[in-house]
Amino acid sequence: MKIHNFSAGPSILPESTIKNSADAVLNFAGTGLSLLEVSHRSKEFVAVMDDAIALVKELLDLPAGYEVVFVGGGASTQFCMVPFNLLAKKAAYLNTGAWAAKAIKEAKGFGEVVEVASSKDAVYNYIPKGYEVPSDADYFHITTNNTIYGTEIRKDLDVSVPLVADMSSDIFSRPIDVSKYNIIYAGAQKNLAPSGVTIAIVKEDALGKMDRHIPTMLDYRTHIDKGSMFNTPPVFPVYSALQTLKWLKENGGVAAMEKINIEKAGILYDEIDRNKLFKCTVEAAEDRSIMNVCFIMNDEYKELEKDFFDFATSKGMSGIKGHRSVGGFRASIYNAMPKSSVQALIDSMKEFEAKH
Amino acid sequence: MKIHNFSAGPSILPESTIKNSADAVLNFAGTGLSLLEVSHRSKEFVAVMDDAIALVKELLDLPAGYEVVFVGGGASTQFCMVPFNLLAKKAAYLNTGAWAAKAIKEAKGFGEVVEVASSKDAVYNYIPKGYEVPSDADYFHITTNNTIYGTEIRKDLDVSVPLVADMSSDIFSRPIDVSKYNIIYAGAQKNLAPSGVTIAIVKEDALGKMDRHIPTMLDYRTHIDKGSMFNTPPVFPVYSALQTLKWLKENGGVAAMEKINIEKAGILYDEIDRNKLFKCTVEAAEDRSIMNVCFIMNDEYKELEKDFFDFATSKGMSGIKGHRSVGGFRASIYNAMPKSSVQALIDSMKEFEAKH
Repeated sequence: MKIHNFSAGPSILPESTIKNSADAVLNFAGTGLSLLEVSHRSKEFVAVMDDAIALVKELLDLPAGYEVVFVGGGASTQFCMVPFNLLAKKAAYLNTGAWAAKAIKEAKGFGEVVEVASSKDAVYNYIPKGYEVPSDADYFHITTNNTIYGTEIRKDLDVSVPLVADMSSDIFSRPIDVSKYNIIYAGAQKNLAPSGVTIAIVKEDALGKMDRHIPTMLDYRTHIDKGSMFNTPPVFPVYSALQTLKWLKENGGVAAMEKINIEKAGILYDEIDRNKLFKCTVEAAEDRSIMNVCFIMNDEYKELEKDFFDFATSKGMSGIKGHRSVGGFRASIYNAMPKSSVQALIDSMKEFEAKH
Repeated sequence: MKIHNFSAGPSILPESTIKNSADAVLNFAGTGLSLLEVSHRSKEFVAVMDDAIALVKELLDLPAGYEVVFVGGGASTQFCMVPFNLLAKKAAYLNTGAWAAKAIKEAKGFGEVVEVASSKDAVYNYIPKGYEVPSDADYFHITTNNTIYGTEIRKDLDVSVPLVADMSSDIFSRPIDVSKYNIIYAGAQKNLAPSGVTIAIVKEDALGKMDRHIPTMLDYRTHIDKGSMFNTPPVFPVYSALQTLKWLKENGGVAAMEKINIEKAGILYDEIDRNKLFKCTVEAAEDRSIMNVCFIMNDEYKELEKDFFDFATSKGMSGIKGHRSVGGFRASIYNAMPKSSVQALIDSMKEFEAKH
């Protein structure tokens, strides 16, 4: 039986990423050695790192003055790296979920933090609007996609201060106007690579303005200056990332991804809205994520939740259980998720409805 | 031709680690999914993490009150995590190489740092002795194996304050008396796993005594409390680490490793001392590393350096070029290096000598 991997992350990757990564574990770039045991200073791996950085720049159309780094530690480490490097006095944050809240908590260790708006009271089921960002804030931090709740900010916001964005779960899902951001960061384990590497896109001009002591590994300049080779990088995850970046380019880049992502999410939201058994947890169409689609049973069918989970599982759907704070179901349909798998989920929803 | 991988790191791993890791990239634990795309919260991966932590405890015979964490960011991040968590006022450091010097540099951002001794003047070709460690230091930091220079502290030192050790390149090469240490840390990419994960062994009692703000990800307690699952861990490197830990146990554990490591290093040092063409850069036998064996051409044969490099390369020796600060050659013979490969290097040294 074909397994459809709707896991929220680590999550589905292109088949070519998986196959090429497995091959390289056995024989890397014709060296006769495993990718796991070659020096990161070997010319073969230096080329991997250089190509990966160049492809991120190309795919996201980075303006001059921006650099790309690959680092370890996850997006959670970025929660403190951002204020270490950018928070001189005051920063503004938008609270759109548990991860945004963690970023806010970390920033408070470094200066004044203004939470401009929050949707916490409604279990984060919408993206707040109409808030004001203090014009004297050093930056405005947003979490563009909220995996747990299925909400997404799919536009590059217009505010009076530079943006900083956690794009862990929707980077490469659409074109971005990078010039609006001082920093974009993303844990790789959704749309890019296995876990263990984080990508950061940094405006160089924004750095070097702090009075505080920044530990070497937490200073973006360290990694920019050394081309992400200051210390031994996470070799294997970077290699896998390169395979996905190549796949992205071969498949038309981020504009093509956005088109198909909107299409995939569209047919699934349509089915949720149509099917009498289910309802979407996010009401406003413009807030609905095209990466994570969250839905629950309609009130009158609540008792069927476990039955549908078991039914869908028997049809090959994997990882569709919703986060415990939301309940119900979550279908994560990242770039690598084929439309046929989304259709298989829709078919199982229709079939289950017909039975009841 | 068989390639003998003498690379200093990332470096040779057991064949079973490489094979099992490649297999899991294609199908992890019979799930039908790749290890690269499964949730770190899946029962199959939770078991991997639990088993890896348990095996580290078993292999290094951890006393009660010590915990093991797997984190990202490399040993370079530990250079600041150690003082973040342990340096209240003053710390003592032993300067035995470039990596020790980097650890010292980081610690200076947090308090008074006493460099008790240094072998820098002699290109770090010996381990200083006869120094005094201030009895009011919060800890005494050592780098047990100095990859670049081929020196090693192969005993657990007796000093009046708790030890902290960077064991990146010799952890699991010998039994350790863990009770003498507050923290032992090691980047995994020598004796354990591919790069991208760092292991830290932490005495829990030593934590929680700082006044300073410690960012969440840099606080060892975060990772201890959540069993190294506070955020998404580097799934693939942890899986590979578990394969090596199993191999270690099957092969008699760290005591058996020490025996064979001494034997492997012994025959190579004997050949260097005997062969008229070469000399070891480390004179004192007790300072010679059993992990990295550094040697250069004898003065009267200096012009043969490139010839020997080419000759050895033609015989399948890979990664034997010495670090630029030392020159000559470096044979890294970590746990996974079979004696037969060391013998192949020795044979090529003998054969090259016979030609000249």
